Amino acid sequence: MPHTYPLDAWCIRETSFDTASNFLDETLFALGNGYIGLRGTLEEGYGGPAGTSLDGSYLNGFYESEPITYPEAAFALAKTNQFMLNVPNAKGVSLWLEGERFDMLAGQVENYERKLDFRTGVLERSLVWTSPQGRRAAIRSRRLVSFANKHLFAIEFAVTPLNFSGKVEVLSSIDGAVKNQEAGDDPRVGSAVSGPALHLLGADLEPHYSALLQRTLNSGFMLVSAALTEVSVPHEQGAAQDGLRLEQIYMVPAQQDVEIRLTKFGSYYSSRDYAESELAARSRQTLQAAQAAGFEALVAEQAAYLADFWAQADVEIAGDDALQQGIRFNQFHLLQSVGRDGRTNISAKGVTGEGYEGHYFWDTEIYIFPFFLYNKPEIARKLLEYRYAGLPFARERARQMSHAKGALYPWRTIAGEECSAYFPAGTAQYHINADIAYSIKLYMEATGDESYLLQYGAEIVMETARIWTGIGSYNREGRFVINEVTGPDEYTALVNNNYYTNAMAQMHLNFAASIAEHLAAQQPEAFARIAAAVQLNANEPAEWRRAAQLMLLPYDETLKIHEQDDSFLSRKVWDFANTPKENYPLLLNYHPMVIYRHQVCKQADVVLALLLLSDQFTLEDKKRDFDYYEAVTTHDSSLSSCIFSIIASEVGYHDKAYEYFMETARLDLDDTHGNTHYGVHTAAMAGTWMGVAYGFAGMRVVEGEVRFAPTLPAQWQHYQFRIHLHGCLLQVRVSAGKTEYKLLHGDVLAFTHRGDRVEVTASSPVKELP
Amino acid sequence: MPHTYPLDAWCIRETSFDTASNFLDETLFALGNGYIGLRGTLEEGYGGPAGTSLDGSYLNGFYESEPITYPEAAFALAKTNQFMLNVPNAKGVSLWLEGERFDMLAGQVENYERKLDFRTGVLERSLVWTSPQGRRAAIRSRRLVSFANKHLFAIEFAVTPLNFSGKVEVLSSIDGAVKNQEAGDDPRVGSAVSGPALHLLGADLEPHYSALLQRTLNSGFMLVSAALTEVSVPHEQGAAQDGLRLEQIYMVPAQQDVEIRLTKFGSYYSSRDYAESELAARSRQTLQAAQAAGFEALVAEQAAYLADFWAQADVEIAGDDALQQGIRFNQFHLLQSVGRDGRTNISAKGVTGEGYEGHYFWDTEIYIFPFFLYNKPEIARKLLEYRYAGLPFARERARQMSHAKGALYPWRTIAGEECSAYFPAGTAQYHINADIAYSIKLYMEATGDESYLLQYGAEIVMETARIWTGIGSYNREGRFVINEVTGPDEYTALVNNNYYTNAMAQMHLNFAASIAEHLAAQQPEAFARIAAAVQLNANEPAEWRRAAQLMLLPYDETLKIHEQDDSFLSRKVWDFANTPKENYPLLLNYHPMVIYRHQVCKQADVVLALLLLSDQFTLEDKKRDFDYYEAVTTHDSSLSSCIFSIIASEVGYHDKAYEYFMETARLDLDDTHGNTHYGVHTAAMAGTWMGVAYGFAGMRVVEGEVRFAPTLPAQWQHYQFRIHLHGCLLQVRVSAGKTEYKLLHGDVLAFTHRGDRVEVTASSPVKELP
Repeated sequence: MPHTYPLDAWCIRETSFDTASNFLDETLFALGNGYIGLRGTLEEGYGGPAGTSLDGSYLNGFYESEPITYPEAAFALAKTNQFMLNVPNAKGVSLWLEGERFDMLAGQVENYERKLDFRTGVLERSLVWTSPQGRRAAIRSRRLVSFANKHLFAIEFAVTPLNFSGKVEVLSSIDGAVKNQEAGDDPRVGSAVSGPALHLLGADLEPHYSALLQRTLNSGFMLVSAALTEVSVPHEQGAAQDGLRLEQIYMVPAQQDVEIRLTKFGSYYSSRDYAESELAARSRQTLQAAQAAGFEALVAEQAAYLADFWAQADVEIAGDDALQQGIRFNQFHLLQSVGRDGRTNISAKGVTGEGYEGHYFWDTEIYIFPFFLYNKPEIARKLLEYRYAGLPFARERARQMSHAKGALYPWRTIAGEECSAYFPAGTAQYHINADIAYSIKLYMEATGDESYLLQYGAEIVMETARIWTGIGSYNREGRFVINEVTGPDEYTALVNNNYYTNAMAQMHLNFAASIAEHLAAQQPEAFARIAAAVQLNANEPAEWRRAAQLMLLPYDETLKIHEQDDSFLSRKVWDFANTPKENYPLLLNYHPMVIYRHQVCKQADVVLALLLLSDQFTLEDKKRDFDYYEAVTTHDSSLSSCIFSIIASEVGYHDKAYEYFMETARLDLDDTHGNTHYGVHTAAMAGTWMGVAYGFAGMRVVEGEVRFAPTLPAQWQHYQFRIHLHGCLLQVRVSAGKTEYKLLHGDVLAFTHRGDRVEVTASSPVKELP
Repeated sequence: MPHTYPLDAWCIRETSFDTASNFLDETLFALGNGYIGLRGTLEEGYGGPAGTSLDGSYLNGFYESEPITYPEAAFALAKTNQFMLNVPNAKGVSLWLEGERFDMLAGQVENYERKLDFRTGVLERSLVWTSPQGRRAAIRSRRLVSFANKHLFAIEFAVTPLNFSGKVEVLSSIDGAVKNQEAGDDPRVGSAVSGPALHLLGADLEPHYSALLQRTLNSGFMLVSAALTEVSVPHEQGAAQDGLRLEQIYMVPAQQDVEIRLTKFGSYYSSRDYAESELAARSRQTLQAAQAAGFEALVAEQAAYLADFWAQADVEIAGDDALQQGIRFNQFHLLQSVGRDGRTNISAKGVTGEGYEGHYFWDTEIYIFPFFLYNKPEIARKLLEYRYAGLPFARERARQMSHAKGALYPWRTIAGEECSAYFPAGTAQYHINADIAYSIKLYMEATGDESYLLQYGAEIVMETARIWTGIGSYNREGRFVINEVTGPDEYTALVNNNYYTNAMAQMHLNFAASIAEHLAAQQPEAFARIAAAVQLNANEPAEWRRAAQLMLLPYDETLKIHEQDDSFLSRKVWDFANTPKENYPLLLNYHPMVIYRHQVCKQADVVLALLLLSDQFTLEDKKRDFDYYEAVTTHDSSLSSCIFSIIASEVGYHDKAYEYFMETARLDLDDTHGNTHYGVHTAAMAGTWMGVAYGFAGMRVVEGEVRFAPTLPAQWQHYQFRIHLHGCLLQVRVSAGKTEYKLLHGDVLAFTHRGDRVEVTASSPVKELP
C-alpha cells in the first residue's frame, strides 16, 4: 500500500492537492483540542465533486437529540438518540483578487504544501496561485485550535500579490447553514435528522466582530459561535448578514509584493458549560484576550503545551519511519480528541467526523484509557469523572431493564442516556459495566488515588457490580451463569456465558467486594456514607464473592481452548475460502443472523480477555486460544488488530505481532478500513500505544504489580516510551539485547523485568538489563 | 367474566347500545366475505368519545407499501412493509327528520336490538328513536357482505315516522377521507403511515350512482369504490361531492306510519384483480345486477350459502351454551375472513381490524388450515395455491439471506415479500418453511390430490426443504444442528436447535425426500419437469434423508423432557410469583432481552410439536413435557391455549383441557386478551375447532391414517362435528359412553377408534362404538 504522505517523523505533509483524497485529507488534517474539532477543510471553501468533502466543525459533547423510531416497538428500547452536531463553520476566509475568487480548483496552483506538525499543533498551507486571468499571488494560512483554551481557535490567512497591485477583498465568515450527514445503509454513519438542527436566536454584527446565537430544538442548548478579525494593512471594512451567514469584509488597495494578513480568532461557547446569559460576554472576552496576545503568542503557547505532552508521551521507534509517523500521528490525534472537563469523553471518531455520531463507547475504558493513564493521568481521571456524572442515568437505565438495584451503563451515549438503537449489538453488551470497573481498578493500581475511590469510584464499582447478580443466576450444576448478553465480538450476539463477559464480571465482582471490605476496615466513615448512598445490603459483598467464585467460564476440554460462549463451537465455521474480498466487512454484506449463525468473529473477544486478565492464563492457553480465534476472526472492527498484535507478541509470533501492529499504527494514515473520511479511529490509535507497551515491551499490571518482558522487532533498532506510575515517570528503552529503565521523575519505583524484581530510585535512576 | 351478549346458539345480539363496548362491538359485528371486510360500525356514523370506535372497511390483500426505516440499518433487513388499507367507507347512510339528524347518542333510543345471525349472515339493527325535539321514528337496517360475489355488499336502511309527517332526508355516502391507525407503543397494532394513503383519480357522480376512483401511491393499485342506491317512496333526488366524499341525497315528503326504505348496493374493485380499464364497468355491472335481483334475493343467496357451510362445518355442543355460541361465532368469522382466490390468504385479524396490518403468518398453516381442510377443502387448496404464488418471492428472500439454493417464506407478508421489521421474532422463525410443508403433507394425506402435488406442492416442498441443509450443519458429534433461529415461542429468540424447528425440519426433509422418491418412481415425466424447474441435484434427496436422520432433537436426560432449545433449561425460571397481573403480557412490560434471558414461554412450542408430530412421543413424554412447559408459559399469545387444551385432553388433564378450551372458544367474544377491538384472532378461532376434533375427539392424522380417541367433557351431554376426508364426509358424534360415526357422503372410509380399525360404507354408514 502506498503511503498517503511522505514518511516524516513529526508531521503529515502533502505537496499536491487532490480532490480524490480530499475527503480523507480533511479528517487527517483535522485539528482539535478535546472540545472544538475542525475538519481540515479549506478556509475559502471547496467546490469539488459531490461526496469528496464534509465541511464539519464539532464540539465534543454538544449534541442534538431526536426520538429513535423503531419500525416495530418494544418495551425499554432506547428512546432518544443524541448526536454530535455539525456547528457553524467559523473558519471561513475567502479572497478575491480584483474580482477573481481564489479557488484551489480554478486557475493554477504551484509550490503547494499543506502540513500538520505534531510539535506545533498548527496546520499550515502555502501556495502560489495564478488566477484564470493571470493574477499571481502567494497565499499561506496557519490554523490552530488552542490546547490552552478549549473555546478558542485562530487562523492566519495571508496573501501577497506577485504580479499586480489593485483591489483585494478578504472576507471572513461564520456560516450557520450547515447540517449533519444523513444516515444511509451503513449503520456506522449518519443521523436520522436531515436539515439544520440549530435555530437562529440572533446575531451580533459589529465592525470586526461577528457572533451567531443559536439553539438546538430538542436538547435545548444555546450556542454562541463568534469571531474577531483584523487585517494587517490599511483597508475599508464592512459587515453583512445573509440569513445564518455573517460576514466581515475587508477591501484592501493591495500593493504588489506587500503581504495582506487577516487574523481571525474564533470561539464556541455553549450552555452545556455556562449559563446562557454569560455566553456572549465570554465569547467576546476570550476573543479580545486572544487578539491582545496575538496570533504568535497562541502559536507559542500551543508549542509549549505540545512540548510538555511529547516529553511524556512520545514513543520513539528507530527503524521504521512509517510506524514512527503513524504512532505520533495517532497520539497527537488522541490528544486532540479527548474531552478533559469531566463532562465529556472521547468519541469513537474524536471530533474529526460524524461516524458513530460522536458517541462514547467502551472504547474509552478498554482501548484509550491506558494511554492517558500512563501518559496524562490527570486526563484519565477526568474520563473516570465523566462516568460518575453518568451514574444517575445508568441507575435509571438499570430500572428500565428490570434490575431492582444497581446501574447499567449505556453502550453508546453522549450525555449518559442509552443511545443504541440495535440492542443485540448495543444494550446487550453488558460488559460495559465491567469495562468501566476495570479502568477504575487500573487507575487505582497505577495512581493509588484514594480520593477518587472515595468520592466516585467505590460507588460506581459497587452499583455496577450489582447488575451481575441481577442478570446472572445459578444453573442446575450450581455454576453462576450470565445469559443473553453480547460480548465484544459483534458478529456473535445474545449468547449465554460469553467468556469475556463472565471473566470480566468475575474480576468486577471480586473488585467490588474488595473495595467494600477494604473501606469497611480502613475507612469506616466513608464506607458508611457510600453504603448508605447505594443502600448496600450487608450480605451483598459476600454474594458478589460467591457469584465470582462459582462463575462459569466456558472451556472446551477437547480443543483445550476457552470457548467464546456456551455454543460458539457448535456453530459452523464461516466459509472464508469462498468469501470474496469485496464481501468484507461482512456486516455490510450479510444479514446479521447469517453472521451470528457462524463461527466468525469481528474482533478480539476471548483474545482480549487474554490481555486484560493476563495472569489467569498459561502461555499454552494463550497460544491455543490465539491460534483458534485468529483463524475465525475477520478484524472487520478497528478494535481487533492491536489486541492480536499484543497477544501475538506474548506467545512468540513476532512476525504476526509486527503485521497486526502495522495495521493498527497506520489504520487511519493509510485508510485501511476505507472509512477514515468519516473520522479517525481513536480506539485503534490508542491500541497502537498498547501495541508498543503491552505488546513489544510485554507490560502487564497484575494486582498493581507492573511487569515487563520486552522484545525488539527485528525491523527496529530500538524503541522507547515512558509511563507515569505512582507519581513517577519511567522511561523504557528497548534496543538490541538490552532494556534500559530510567526513572525520569519520582523517588523510587519497583517492577519486574522478565519475572525479576527491579527497583529504580532518584539516586540510582537507570537500570540496564538484558 | 360476564358474557358480552346473551348466550344464543346461532347469533350474537345486543339490546342496548354502549359507547364503552362500542369499539369491541364493531369487531364482533363485523361482516366479511374473505375479501371485503366491514367493521360493525353504524351506517349514520358515531360521535362517541375518542378511542371508542374505528370505522374501518378493508379488502383482503389490498395494501399500500411503505419503506421500513430502521434506526440502525443492517444488510438484508426487510425493506418494505405492506399494510392492509382502510378503504373508503361506502356504508354511510344518514338520516334527518325535519332537519334533526339521527344519532344514537342524541335523543332517546328504545326497543333497540342489534343482531348478527350466523345462519343468515345479515347484520340487523332495529330501534325506535325519539329526537331531541320529540319526533319519533322506527328505524331498522340490514347489512350483508355477499358470500356469492366477493366484490359486493348491500344495505337496507328503513325509517318509519311514528308521530309526524314531514320532510325526511336520507343521505347515502362514500367517504374516501379515511386513514389507517398509526403505530404506537404496542408493536402489534398500527402502520407507520399517517394520513390518507389513497389518492383521488376521479369520481363518477350520477343520480343514484356514485363511484370514487383512487390510487395507492407506492403499491400503485387502482381502486374503485362504488354504490348504487334506491328509495322505496316518492322523493326528490340530488348528488354532491365534497372532496373525497360523494353523496346521494333523497328528500322525502314522509307520511306518518309509512316506511321509507333506502337500499344501497356497494362494491369494491381493484387492479389487484382486474385490468384498470375494467374496474369502473365491472363496478357498475355488479351493482346493476344486484339491484335487478333485489335485496331480498341477496339475503336468500346468503342464507343458502351459509346453510351449505353449516351442513358441513357445524360443531354441535350440548351442555354449554357459551361454548356453543363461541365456536359457531368463531367458525362464522373464519368463513368471513378467509381469502379464497389463490392470491389472498387469511390474516391474523381477518378483515375485521388493523392489528398486525392485515399480514399473513404461519397461523394460516398451523392453526387455520386444518379447519378448512376438513370442512371446506376447496378453500384449503386455495390457501396452498397462495403459497405457490409466493414462491418467487421466497426464492428471492433466500438469496438475500445468503442461501445459494431454495426458498425461504416470509414470516409476515401480504403479497409475498418479507415484512417483518424485527427479525429476532420475524425472519428468524425459519420454521415457517416446515409449517407450510406440513400443511401440504396434511392436505395430501386428507385429499390425495395428486394434481396439487404435481402442479404446486412438490416444487414448494423441495425448494423449502433445501433451506434446512443450507442453514443447518453437522456439529462435532456428527449431529445435524440448526443454529440461530427462533421457534414458535417468541419469548425466546435466536437460539440453537429449537426443538420444534428441528423436529419439523426433520419431518419436512423426510417429506421432501419421499416426494422426490415417489415421483421419480411413479411419475418420472413430471418428476423430470419439476427437478429441472428447481435444478435438483441427484444427491439432494439423500442429503435430506441424512440430515433428517442425524437431526439433533434436544432432550434432557435428567428431567426426561424435550428441551425447547440447547440452552433453555440453563436459563433462570421467570419469577412468576412476583410478577403482578398487570405486567402481562410481558412483552409490553419488559425489554425483550429480559424476557429472552428467562425460562418463560409466550406460547406452545415443544407442546405444539407434541400435537403436530404426535406419534413421535410416548404418552409419558407428552405428560412430562406438558407439565414442565405449562408451568413456564404465560399464554400471552392467543395461539397458545388451544394447543394446551388439546394436549391436556390427550394426557388426561380433563379439567385443564376444558379451561384452556373455554379460553380459546370465547377469546374474542369475551375479549379475554383485551385487544379484540383491533380485530378478531383468527388462529385462536380455528384453534377452537382443533380443540374439539384434535382435543376432545382425539383426532390425529399419522401418515394418512386418521385416528380418534374421543372423550366427553363432564359438562357436556354430547358434541358432534364432521370432517371431509378422501372425498367422504364423516360425522362424529360423541355422547356419554359412546361415539357414533356416520358416513354422510362417500363410499367407504376407514379410520381407527381407540386403536381399533373402523370402516363405514355407503351401505353401512353408521358405527356406534363405546
